[in-house]
Amino acid sequence: MPILVMKFGGTSVANIDRIRRAAKRVGVEVAKGYDVIVIVSAMAGRTNELVGWVDEISPLYDAREYDAVVSSGENVTAGLMALTLQEMDVPARSWQGWQVPVQTTSAHSAARIEDIPPENILSKFQEGMRVAVIAGFQGISPEGRITTLGRGGSDTTAVAFAAAFDAERCDIYTDVDGVYTTDPRITDKARKLDKIAFEEMLELASLGAKVLQTRSVELAMRYNVKLRVLSSFEEQSDDAGTLVCAEEEIMESNVVNGIAYSREEAKMTLVSVADRPGIAAAIFGPLSEAGVNVDMIIQNISEEGRTDMTFSCPTNQVARAEKAMQDAKTRGEINFHDLLADTNVAKISAVGIGMRSQSGVAAKMFKTLSDEGINIKVISTSEIKISVLVDRKYMELAVQSLHDAFGLEHAA
Amino acid sequence: MPILVMKFGGTSVANIDRIRRAAKRVGVEVAKGYDVIVIVSAMAGRTNELVGWVDEISPLYDAREYDAVVSSGENVTAGLMALTLQEMDVPARSWQGWQVPVQTTSAHSAARIEDIPPENILSKFQEGMRVAVIAGFQGISPEGRITTLGRGGSDTTAVAFAAAFDAERCDIYTDVDGVYTTDPRITDKARKLDKIAFEEMLELASLGAKVLQTRSVELAMRYNVKLRVLSSFEEQSDDAGTLVCAEEEIMESNVVNGIAYSREEAKMTLVSVADRPGIAAAIFGPLSEAGVNVDMIIQNISEEGRTDMTFSCPTNQVARAEKAMQDAKTRGEINFHDLLADTNVAKISAVGIGMRSQSGVAAKMFKTLSDEGINIKVISTSEIKISVLVDRKYMELAVQSLHDAFGLEHAA
Repeated sequence: MPILVMKFGGTSVANIDRIRRAAKRVGVEVAKGYDVIVIVSAMAGRTNELVGWVDEISPLYDAREYDAVVSSGENVTAGLMALTLQEMDVPARSWQGWQVPVQTTSAHSAARIEDIPPENILSKFQEGMRVAVIAGFQGISPEGRITTLGRGGSDTTAVAFAAAFDAERCDIYTDVDGVYTTDPRITDKARKLDKIAFEEMLELASLGAKVLQTRSVELAMRYNVKLRVLSSFEEQSDDAGTLVCAEEEIMESNVVNGIAYSREEAKMTLVSVADRPGIAAAIFGPLSEAGVNVDMIIQNISEEGRTDMTFSCPTNQVARAEKAMQDAKTRGEINFHDLLADTNVAKISAVGIGMRSQSGVAAKMFKTLSDEGINIKVISTSEIKISVLVDRKYMELAVQSLHDAFGLEHAA
Repeated sequence: MPILVMKFGGTSVANIDRIRRAAKRVGVEVAKGYDVIVIVSAMAGRTNELVGWVDEISPLYDAREYDAVVSSGENVTAGLMALTLQEMDVPARSWQGWQVPVQTTSAHSAARIEDIPPENILSKFQEGMRVAVIAGFQGISPEGRITTLGRGGSDTTAVAFAAAFDAERCDIYTDVDGVYTTDPRITDKARKLDKIAFEEMLELASLGAKVLQTRSVELAMRYNVKLRVLSSFEEQSDDAGTLVCAEEEIMESNVVNGIAYSREEAKMTLVSVADRPGIAAAIFGPLSEAGVNVDMIIQNISEEGRTDMTFSCPTNQVARAEKAMQDAKTRGEINFHDLLADTNVAKISAVGIGMRSQSGVAAKMFKTLSDEGINIKVISTSEIKISVLVDRKYMELAVQSLHDAFGLEHAA
């Protein structure tokens, strides 16, 4: 029988009633003839409670014990989901990560899945079991200890199972009904997309759209797993939600398919850096070593052998970036007058695979913002994305005006 | 280094502060030179919450999924305890049942421990680890699924580890400071015992004194594991609490060492049973098959070929007993006029190994109750125990008067 993977996030299994509702959705797919692999998160709030206890005990915790503690929430949901399915006369059983086994690296709290041998579960399907319920977010290290994949890791678990079992599709049930052209809280013109390409979803996910975890989209793209994002709170038809798929499967598409934003980026400026060959490496080498994720970089025109260097990084890495730069200065590797951190900015991005074949997108974006009197502080581009840093107070206005300018309200 | 087992119950690890206090107690023993195996229960209330969810989903649940769900509480405490010890610079790590592995039977929700291979943990002790924290109450079946030992099973886990590791002692930390001659809520003359013999503790435990789980005492007796019951809420000296040990290690002992009571026993009377050879088997066979735990039995004098048969069983098995008897009557295996159930009774028991060598204990017990005007409904005795069934309204008075009569207020 064809295999379908269905993943239910924390709000979709927050209590027994919601677990029942999710189980009914699973029952519908079983009735269609699918053998189903269900991936569950912890009940909403549980993981935060567990993380809170660990933090209370030890700010510098042993990640192996952290993983042993926080993985327990998913185990509870997996058992409860299996019981609920059995109560509906659907043959089901639960698996914890180590039982499958979901083999991961030893990088506790941020482990990567290395292999998922399908034999155990396939043999149960052959015996007549119809649903395998898997505790998401967790695995087992080569040393036999419990690992977790990092927050949001259940999406990654789901895609990895879909790849390992060659599933027909991987349905991600969540509290929104799909992927939108932008955040509906910012403009009511936001439109749900029927389909979106992996590359676009990847840009949107990493730009702060919190529908899917970035790694799960990467994995889906690599193994060409069809991902569907849909709501567990609405009655669903076969074409509900948004399908994340290969570019080739999308016939018509706007040039720009999404406007993303992030408040969690800061603008850092090294003032009056002594300019010389290799200065960029001298700056960004130490930042990289300190674990600072630099996104955008601008170097101003050099005057009299000195220049200003501007870059952006996540706001919660500002302190780390400052320390790395001061240390490099102390070691004599770089020389600058001042280091300014501006956290009062927002990053606005336009994303679309159509940009590859159509010119003028950047020009249109800059003109739109200029017409609204919004000053652009930093720009960065990739093949299918243009991002700008603007004053935070203009964030909503920028998103709304770009959404209008690129006609996202209407499908292509 | 000598090994000590320390077990902390749910109230002793109910929150992070209490886990810290328990960890400090562990630290004291480590400082004395012990390698310590700590067995933890779930944080108070957690297991009930999990059981509640399972019951809400399915009254006739799959015990394998039940076990997977309810075992998660202990996993959380084990990780948190290991983190707390590490934070105190005590080298520690946690083990879940399947990691040790604690090998059990496949009798889910009531599994028995079959083996605990000590190699994994011993090799870590040799590498310098000082504390192994074990999630109590759980194990792994031959099929690789999670099992639990039944409620209170963490005591059993603790004793099994003490036996497997040849521990010097097994300390059970709980919310009372030891074993008392009777329930201090019934008489303030109740006295804490310094020592009690395995056999006596076994009788008291099975008679309703809830300090230790019966199976854990059985196991301690079989492997001669010294058990100490003590409070996790008081500063402890080396001879605190009550030591449960072999009879030979107790020099002086009262004839009666404990007065136990239970409200959970019912008196059942089959009125006017047709008496014939084999009638007892015809009655108690079906009761046994129906899973009714019959404790006391009385057969009245037979008159004109008919007799009354009285027995006691747990109150929550009364309905089951009634059905078994009516079914046997329908099948023509027995004949009786009526079946009376009296749940308004209490069982009072006097326990002491001294009874073996001293006569007159039963007579003194009956006279004491008689002097108080308390009518005895049923009597049963064993080598070291006399139990009587009385009207429930006399329960407290019976306990108090027997405690006085046998001089339990004062040590031998």
